[in-house]
Amino acid sequence: MLSTTPRTTLGRSKDRGRTDRADLYAVLDAGLICHLGVVRDGAPMVIPTGYGRIGDTLYVHGSTGASSLRISGEVCVTVTHLDGIVLARSAFHHSVNYRSAMIYGTARAVDDPDERMAGLRAVTEQLAPGQWDTVRLPDRKEMAKTTVVAISLAEASVKVRQGPPNDDDEDYALPVWAGVLPLRVEWGTPVPDPKLAPGIEVPKHIAER
Amino acid sequence: MLSTTPRTTLGRSKDRGRTDRADLYAVLDAGLICHLGVVRDGAPMVIPTGYGRIGDTLYVHGSTGASSLRISGEVCVTVTHLDGIVLARSAFHHSVNYRSAMIYGTARAVDDPDERMAGLRAVTEQLAPGQWDTVRLPDRKEMAKTTVVAISLAEASVKVRQGPPNDDDEDYALPVWAGVLPLRVEWGTPVPDPKLAPGIEVPKHIAER
Repeated sequence: MLSTTPRTTLGRSKDRGRTDRADLYAVLDAGLICHLGVVRDGAPMVIPTGYGRIGDTLYVHGSTGASSLRISGEVCVTVTHLDGIVLARSAFHHSVNYRSAMIYGTARAVDDPDERMAGLRAVTEQLAPGQWDTVRLPDRKEMAKTTVVAISLAEASVKVRQGPPNDDDEDYALPVWAGVLPLRVEWGTPVPDPKLAPGIEVPKHIAER
Repeated sequence: MLSTTPRTTLGRSKDRGRTDRADLYAVLDAGLICHLGVVRDGAPMVIPTGYGRIGDTLYVHGSTGASSLRISGEVCVTVTHLDGIVLARSAFHHSVNYRSAMIYGTARAVDDPDERMAGLRAVTEQLAPGQWDTVRLPDRKEMAKTTVVAISLAEASVKVRQGPPNDDDEDYALPVWAGVLPLRVEWGTPVPDPKLAPGIEVPKHIAER
């Protein structure tokens, strides 16, 4: 079950809320990037970045040189899938179909070398499953330049909206088309690096994605 | 030109920064949803939501009943387009191709009825251009239930990464495929509302999107 803290309990549209941890995992595992919220000098900052999940921990990484990824304190991580535009008969009832997760937690700087490497692996595999075992792994110098931050999935909420518009009863008689315009993310054809040595084929885990 | 405040000036990867306002407009106008950061009880909260732009003002809207859209104080709005996964020869140099905009500002509750209506129009048209003129517009009751919030585009930064991976010189000899796996958002076939009255065709602005 997901948490029921005040900020993870929906005030409105309760029918959109999901309470099962499996729903949280499904939203996170299907995503590519998250939007990470931090408070910097009292003001919010929302950073798009990669992430990975191991069990009930989310990992993000950054460069030790990047001020934006010097993450500490409370954070909010949001992952959103936009599945369609919901076109209603009235402007008021326009909406979107989506799956989203919001995670609230305290950023924990990961120091343990094994956990650091596992976190980086999770971040890489989230973007490109199967990739980690085919590339040169981080060396000591690269690890020293990299921050790895963990966020617990203990406090999280999931919202899902799917299906047709919900119009007002009297509007169904209007001569206005209504329905859903679906959208999805599609992979294109892999583009080889112009510097790719001849004879290296696109690996299966990328070609067949 | 875009602003050059400390938080909109890139510390790293300066080559990814754009300084022209046209780049900001291009990122915003191509988007569908933003991630809106606010500070609530000292902690960040990142809300996925629709938005619209009129000139140098961004509009978001919400329900007066939704605590999440009771926006005040400083906000950060981020719009991100993920264009591809950058697959390098080393784990360290993996990246993504993207276009993103971050806007920092103070939320202004819009009270003027004309600006409120214009803001709602912009939000609707961002998701479904051409839709506003075909649907029933908000009545007084609906307007009373709706909050419209404006955010100035005065302070904003734009980052863009495109192109192949940048590997370390010595890694180009590795027998590892490298390149970009592009991704794009594709529209599906419009799905009519099961309650749609017979004889209403999908309008051109939706069918031809």
